Amino acid sequence: MSETNDRWAPLATQLRADSIRATTTAGSGHPTSSLSAADLMGVLLDGHLRADWRRPSRLDDDRLVFSKGHAAPLLYAMGKAAGAFSDEELLTLRKLGSRLEGHPTPALPFVDVATGSLGQGLPAAVGMALAARLLGRELRCWVLLGDSEMAEGSVYEALELAGHYGLARIVGIVDMNRLGQRGPTMVGWDGEAYARRARAFGWNALVIDGHDRLAIDRAYTDAAASDRPVLIVAHTRKGEGVSFLADREGWHGKPLSREEAARALAELGDPPGNLRVEMAGARPSRGAERPPASSAGAPPRYAVGARVATREAFGDALRALGDERADVVALDGEVGNSTYTEKFEKAHPERFFEMYIAEQQLVSAAVGMQALGLVPFAATFAAFFTRAHDQIRMAAISRARLCLAGSHAGVSIGEDGPSQMALEDLAMMRAVAGSTVLYPSCATTAAALTRDLADRAGISYLRTTREKTPILYGPGERFPVGGSKVLRRSSEDVAAVLAAGITLHEALRAHDLLAASGVHIRVVDLYSVKPVDAATVEACARECGGQLVVVEDHFPEGGLGDAVAEVFAGRPAPAITRLAVRALPGSGTPRELLDAAGIGADAIVAAVRRATGASPEVAPRR
Amino acid sequence: MSETNDRWAPLATQLRADSIRATTTAGSGHPTSSLSAADLMGVLLDGHLRADWRRPSRLDDDRLVFSKGHAAPLLYAMGKAAGAFSDEELLTLRKLGSRLEGHPTPALPFVDVATGSLGQGLPAAVGMALAARLLGRELRCWVLLGDSEMAEGSVYEALELAGHYGLARIVGIVDMNRLGQRGPTMVGWDGEAYARRARAFGWNALVIDGHDRLAIDRAYTDAAASDRPVLIVAHTRKGEGVSFLADREGWHGKPLSREEAARALAELGDPPGNLRVEMAGARPSRGAERPPASSAGAPPRYAVGARVATREAFGDALRALGDERADVVALDGEVGNSTYTEKFEKAHPERFFEMYIAEQQLVSAAVGMQALGLVPFAATFAAFFTRAHDQIRMAAISRARLCLAGSHAGVSIGEDGPSQMALEDLAMMRAVAGSTVLYPSCATTAAALTRDLADRAGISYLRTTREKTPILYGPGERFPVGGSKVLRRSSEDVAAVLAAGITLHEALRAHDLLAASGVHIRVVDLYSVKPVDAATVEACARECGGQLVVVEDHFPEGGLGDAVAEVFAGRPAPAITRLAVRALPGSGTPRELLDAAGIGADAIVAAVRRATGASPEVAPRR
Repeated sequence: MSETNDRWAPLATQLRADSIRATTTAGSGHPTSSLSAADLMGVLLDGHLRADWRRPSRLDDDRLVFSKGHAAPLLYAMGKAAGAFSDEELLTLRKLGSRLEGHPTPALPFVDVATGSLGQGLPAAVGMALAARLLGRELRCWVLLGDSEMAEGSVYEALELAGHYGLARIVGIVDMNRLGQRGPTMVGWDGEAYARRARAFGWNALVIDGHDRLAIDRAYTDAAASDRPVLIVAHTRKGEGVSFLADREGWHGKPLSREEAARALAELGDPPGNLRVEMAGARPSRGAERPPASSAGAPPRYAVGARVATREAFGDALRALGDERADVVALDGEVGNSTYTEKFEKAHPERFFEMYIAEQQLVSAAVGMQALGLVPFAATFAAFFTRAHDQIRMAAISRARLCLAGSHAGVSIGEDGPSQMALEDLAMMRAVAGSTVLYPSCATTAAALTRDLADRAGISYLRTTREKTPILYGPGERFPVGGSKVLRRSSEDVAAVLAAGITLHEALRAHDLLAASGVHIRVVDLYSVKPVDAATVEACARECGGQLVVVEDHFPEGGLGDAVAEVFAGRPAPAITRLAVRALPGSGTPRELLDAAGIGADAIVAAVRRATGASPEVAPRR
Repeated sequence: MSETNDRWAPLATQLRADSIRATTTAGSGHPTSSLSAADLMGVLLDGHLRADWRRPSRLDDDRLVFSKGHAAPLLYAMGKAAGAFSDEELLTLRKLGSRLEGHPTPALPFVDVATGSLGQGLPAAVGMALAARLLGRELRCWVLLGDSEMAEGSVYEALELAGHYGLARIVGIVDMNRLGQRGPTMVGWDGEAYARRARAFGWNALVIDGHDRLAIDRAYTDAAASDRPVLIVAHTRKGEGVSFLADREGWHGKPLSREEAARALAELGDPPGNLRVEMAGARPSRGAERPPASSAGAPPRYAVGARVATREAFGDALRALGDERADVVALDGEVGNSTYTEKFEKAHPERFFEMYIAEQQLVSAAVGMQALGLVPFAATFAAFFTRAHDQIRMAAISRARLCLAGSHAGVSIGEDGPSQMALEDLAMMRAVAGSTVLYPSCATTAAALTRDLADRAGISYLRTTREKTPILYGPGERFPVGGSKVLRRSSEDVAAVLAAGITLHEALRAHDLLAASGVHIRVVDLYSVKPVDAATVEACARECGGQLVVVEDHFPEGGLGDAVAEVFAGRPAPAITRLAVRALPGSGTPRELLDAAGIGADAIVAAVRRATGASPEVAPRR
């Protein structure tokens, strides 16, 4: 390398020194994973990354995603060098209350998505690049990947989709230091192995020396001119720059002691640490700073008593939302004719994104899109959102605003069998930090909730049903999140049946069966699973003999029954009978499977009779 | 094609006819997805698949995994042709109680793993092939994939691992019919696109005409001679064989009407349907029919009061289990120095399988291994098992016996921050059908439970803690699944604190703090989260003033609190105060984070005082 042209040497040294100082001060962290990428990131920060981290990020800013989130100390050292915060704040790394967490989160304004679970950065960048294209932005998405995370399937979903959609604004940079947490990676320093894979997915790829800053500079310049996404595979050494760290095993995730740190800093020439980088700033904007605003539109209306599947109502409402709001986009996992996102696609093809059968990419793309101000709705079969559980979990840490719509919930899908039935999705989605979980029973409800979700913070989940169900509510009805609807009520109610989705209709049938023999029950539509309507649940307990029966097309754990039980936390609770799917189902008709699982009308009737001691002789209809 | 040498034509026709007959009789299903692969599977069944489906499968049998599980009608048509069941049973497809479910499950003896969630067949075959190599079996693993599922990242994890380990006994067959559920795939009929990807991962790959049965025969013969895994990309037409179905959109997942079926069968020449295939049978066995039996060994022993992390005890016990039992194997997601599977690896390197950072493959490989009679333990950070949620869900449908060990649970991991903290794993694992969920608080418990899991049916999960915790029990102590331990008890207990894992130690501290001011509480170690010890929980409620306090290092939803509440299903419940992690945590020390989350000893003291009205003036120690 010609030293004369290498203006990044002092910066790279400072980034290394600060990575060591911060982790040694913290007493934990990943200095060696930071050192290996210091040259790559120094050259990027000073000259290629078109943003300015001293001000809040703008839509035209280049994005940098640290997919290898454990290299957070390097990112923070960059933040300090860019003037985003002080050296004092740098040294709060990993301390309680610091924005500088062990892995990057959007607590820092120049971090768009949380990382730390590997293989999620490139998929998020796919969403960002699709959003940038839609919004007419010239920004570039730079993603720093570790070589260990090249084992994650989610990375290949991103390679595939970015290749398919020709997302030339993505530049992936693989910090190929050959060492994972516990030893060598599968391919070591065989950079061509990674390059071959990327090329097989339609990317340009090149292998460079990741410590040759002039080569790095050239690679970034070339990448900017590429008409395809680019993967730069950078041969590096973990711990580079410090003799006793470089390419040594056993140093992953270990800070240096104070004495080791002093030796390391001395090797680095004890840099003063006051170097400031003037970042290049965003390219001149072509579009508005925010996505287009809303306009009026007409949500779908359904006649009471008609039969419409809630999944179809979701599609209707999403299409209408798209009519009104230009910031609403939809993504699907190649089942749009089942989830009914195809209705949105037909009306707004430019804002529909087919993610094919790659559910991890589906969710990550949505996370990337909302980081650029869009309002994404992502849909697939509810069962297959389990494929993206980790991505959903990380989306919550990303403070993402995200609407997920899962169709084909429960045994009521019928003949396709258990692989297609979501029976654990409520448990999964309720346990997402700050989530909203909704489960409409009729199309009117589903459409209204879909509409509301567009403005809701955090991760929202709408669970829909395959089967057509009768419309229960007229078009004017409102469905606040955290609310419920009391559908049957008398002064003689001996129990309250709490249900949502398909089982609400079973509860209504049970009501009529029982009423025919003089037994009265309250029936409540608990469409808001999280937050649940505590006041109404409590009133039911008070007014219906302390007998609650919860019926759900879900396994017993983590669903509606648990949500109802939690209402009474901290005080004595009424009797809560839980009807849920307790054995692994097989194939059958929806009717057969609801009955076999003990969540049909007859089972509800029997449960009410058992719970209340009502005479079982008045036999329920069979 | 030379018709004279094509002995498979009548069989392929029958497979097509039976696929149509069964789905039309069922009134649902995927006939066109079956027709496209009928030639591929006909040639495989008659001549290449070394097994005999008329008898229970043996360890030497070739395996066939229908990764495109929706082509189940074709698999069942093969089963009939092979004499595994009658035509009458074939026509029970998708009926309640039938073994012939909408997607294949091990309800049928020649099905090893359930499919229907796409992209899981090849990863399962990786496990089978690794098991076969370990056990000295000559079997081959044939996997039929759809081209749509080539979008799933899990497929690339399998390509990668099979390439890395040189699993030449895997033959993947891609039924490239170019049509997904709702339209064309990303690459259509560009078979070289798939072949390039496979080659980039070290596979041999070839593209053939998937309706040229002689070419198929040659490809299978060549594949058997390959020294690497082979991907055969077969250019097919969806619905092939019936003029009004072939390569038509809009037919996915739709049965033919009776009239359409009659026309289709007429086009196929109304085959009599009585063709029987004599399958080739397994290659001569070299090894024993079952894996080696057990021998005596010495489980780890820990001294009461010493400090050992439960994750390390898991590693110790797993190593000891490996000493005793040759059928026990371990897999890890490249964090064996954190989960301590490295202890097993050091003692039994040939039975340790590094799955790198590919958690979906990690779980699927374990599922594949248990199908060949091994007893796999798969470990990674508990948080990262969310990456394999769909695989775990499907493993339950596969009736798999599987032990998952998740380390680094909860905020008590400290500085690494929320991306590394499992705070939803109990919710996820409790909602798995038939699962066992265990959460030990000390090394003695962790070791004993690890040992017991090896013999436990279904999906088991062991949650372990990063931090070292004091040993509470001596070496002789027994820990039955479904049990608990009452650690503190008096006749004056005003409340019972139920905890597991790290919070049990907080509960013990709280006990001492309260006792110092004359307030007595019961403290229970609920190490068995599912099934939970209902009798002890009930006794606590009866004997401790109806005041239960549950403390868990987990989000409030779906964890220990819900497990305790469910004990009282159907009857009035005591007051259950739930201390759990309610806000998204950041970085900090374990102590700081436990306290910030309100699940430390001080919070327990305060909760007990609030719940029981005990004077708060006796200030807890700070």
